[in-house]
Amino acid sequence: MKHTSRDIRTANRYEVLRHIIAESPTSRQELAAVTGLSLATVATLVGELLELRMITEVGFEDSAGGRPRGLVAVNASGGALIGVDIAETYVHVELFDLALNVLARAEEDMRPGENRPEQVVGQVAAAVGAVVAQAGIEGARVLGVGVSVPGQVDRATGIAEYAPNWDWHDVPLLGLLAEHIAYPLHLDNPLRACAVAEQWFGAARGRGDTVVVNLGTGVGAGLALGGGLHRGVSNSAGEWGHTTLVLDGRPCHCGNRGCVETYVGAPGIMLNLRELNPQSPLLHPEDQTATVGALARGLADGDPVAVAVVRDTARYIGAGIANLVNLLNPELVVLSSWVARKLGEPLLAEVREAVRRHALGRPFAATEIVLSPIPTDPVCLGAATFALEGALRSVGLRNGGRPGRTVPASR
Amino acid sequence: MKHTSRDIRTANRYEVLRHIIAESPTSRQELAAVTGLSLATVATLVGELLELRMITEVGFEDSAGGRPRGLVAVNASGGALIGVDIAETYVHVELFDLALNVLARAEEDMRPGENRPEQVVGQVAAAVGAVVAQAGIEGARVLGVGVSVPGQVDRATGIAEYAPNWDWHDVPLLGLLAEHIAYPLHLDNPLRACAVAEQWFGAARGRGDTVVVNLGTGVGAGLALGGGLHRGVSNSAGEWGHTTLVLDGRPCHCGNRGCVETYVGAPGIMLNLRELNPQSPLLHPEDQTATVGALARGLADGDPVAVAVVRDTARYIGAGIANLVNLLNPELVVLSSWVARKLGEPLLAEVREAVRRHALGRPFAATEIVLSPIPTDPVCLGAATFALEGALRSVGLRNGGRPGRTVPASR
Ligand SMILES: [Zn+2]
Ligand SMILES: [Zn+2]
Repeated sequence: MKHTSRDIRTANRYEVLRHIIAESPTSRQELAAVTGLSLATVATLVGELLELRMITEVGFEDSAGGRPRGLVAVNASGGALIGVDIAETYVHVELFDLALNVLARAEEDMRPGENRPEQVVGQVAAAVGAVVAQAGIEGARVLGVGVSVPGQVDRATGIAEYAPNWDWHDVPLLGLLAEHIAYPLHLDNPLRACAVAEQWFGAARGRGDTVVVNLGTGVGAGLALGGGLHRGVSNSAGEWGHTTLVLDGRPCHCGNRGCVETYVGAPGIMLNLRELNPQSPLLHPEDQTATVGALARGLADGDPVAVAVVRDTARYIGAGIANLVNLLNPELVVLSSWVARKLGEPLLAEVREAVRRHALGRPFAATEIVLSPIPTDPVCLGAATFALEGALRSVGLRNGGRPGRTVPASR
Repeated sequence: MKHTSRDIRTANRYEVLRHIIAESPTSRQELAAVTGLSLATVATLVGELLELRMITEVGFEDSAGGRPRGLVAVNASGGALIGVDIAETYVHVELFDLALNVLARAEEDMRPGENRPEQVVGQVAAAVGAVVAQAGIEGARVLGVGVSVPGQVDRATGIAEYAPNWDWHDVPLLGLLAEHIAYPLHLDNPLRACAVAEQWFGAARGRGDTVVVNLGTGVGAGLALGGGLHRGVSNSAGEWGHTTLVLDGRPCHCGNRGCVETYVGAPGIMLNLRELNPQSPLLHPEDQTATVGALARGLADGDPVAVAVVRDTARYIGAGIANLVNLLNPELVVLSSWVARKLGEPLLAEVREAVRRHALGRPFAATEIVLSPIPTDPVCLGAATFALEGALRSVGLRNGGRPGRTVPASR
């Protein structure tokens, strides 16, 4: 609960940089207003970021009746960040400038069965090398690599503690990656990456408590509560996919029965389809991506089986989201990840209706449910912000870790 | 998200007083360490509380090698607070001194059917009058009355928006009470009252993220996250009782099916018993309190039906708590309210085992599950703290609302 002055200084510096990245150019006065920090504190932090060449002075704006205000903007070319999204069916790697624009991208499919740690590490290392080469930048400009891997991760040790879909247990992922990648590495999971991406650049910008529901092979919920990420005591909060929705229902690889994920993860959707129509040509056994793609096309064509499967799936998603609405009373629920992107508006409409049926009236009325508006892979984007956060922390270390002024955050 | 300097000053004053109440006597230095505020800020706030006669100077302690430190303690007789717990089956009213010691208590049963707003208001008003008379204090010393009522409440307007067990809709409860009670009134619900009581005086003291699971006629979860109460966007967070555990299961008065409450609220437990053994002498139809009491005695006597019913109920409670553990990854789960108190350790043991079966291994290992250690009614205690918080806020108002120094909280 308590923070050292170092933590607080790093957090405030990160907060100021985040607002500059989201809204360039901006003034110190505007940053003070939006962060709740004092103008003097903001001026100090802006000075540090200028010194680090992460931002630049870009002129002045008139202020009504006062002195012209100095404007600062992110220095896009001041460094590069890499975001890695290791999913069950693919690896995406994106290289960003400091304004979080994508400069280069590498995507590789992961074939079923090719998910041993060494295989995944090899794919990631090759893709990271590829995006650096493709962007044509010097390696020294890469400030860090954020790596997202499904399941429970220990950020401090870089260990992937438990990835249920692959049966990974205590894989020292960052240690293995460090044998191939020379940049600073930072580990977290897609729930938190997506939540941060929505807070910075997506639907949650400027909004209150938000739940980002990830619908992919696995499913989960990133919790943006009280202005920050809710991580829980061991960084494993958000395992909505493994909450029981149907007591004694479908068996789940986590050992429980009736977990949300067994009905609404991509393999669960395939099972919903198989139960409805085992001979359906929409079904591509062993290929989640193709099956969800076929369902999306079927929806567009008005195929009754596709419509029925999506409605059935939306009923489970809706009941599960109603649980989040009743428990957390969020202002916003965002549907993210590849299944949500592929099934899009038709899924959203069915989900909204199902949440309405299951949730209490008042919290339902207080909650907006939307699709993620982020056009690129939000997991890569979020992972890159973790690398940026790490870079700002290590900057403090390189300066010798001198105790900074205590700069309490306003909440 | 942003707070005015008034809000922050009130919050810091409240935080300092809370620590003095929990740990008297204490020094300004210790308060600075425990709150994360600067020593200068603490000194200012302590000065204000001394001026309000809510605390007093009580001497000095030696500090190793330094000047003796001045000690302050709560001035127990500096005022009185009243906490009101309106439950489905009873009304409890307690009068506290400023150290939150109970000075007087009134308890009344509420008979089934006698829960129209006017009836409840009459009972509460009579009980409040009774505790003031019983304590023999002047009315002027009562700083406020905190009122807890089940369901969703609007704190700003004092309206009980929705109490599902009584089918109350938009009852202007504080307005009705104000016709009989002259003290300042503050409304909230038992989930939040119990959570605050555990944070101040119970199992959550000095602990991180905590979920307080209330097991009574209705059930719900008070969420103490990030050092504060998580209320949600419309103050209705915590409706764990109305999360779906058994899709298409038992009908619930909220309109949904398979809600946790339909299996583990006191009426749900009666139904579990009836399904297991319709003729059981443990069953007191129409009387929840008597039935749960009979089950508790049956457990003590090793009655196999009582053991089976409690095990069955614990399975539902455990699966529901596993959902909280997986989703929120709390450090602590506290079982509170009258059903938990009556069924005690035997229920706790069964619940722990059921949570273990349903939760993911790592978050389960990171979570402690305990019974509330608070010997009195935690809802009255929590409600009294809401009255104290309100009194500190209105003190600022009486002083003319002059803008105070900005005193940012450290989180
Ligand atoms: Zn599971
Ligand atoms: Zn319900």
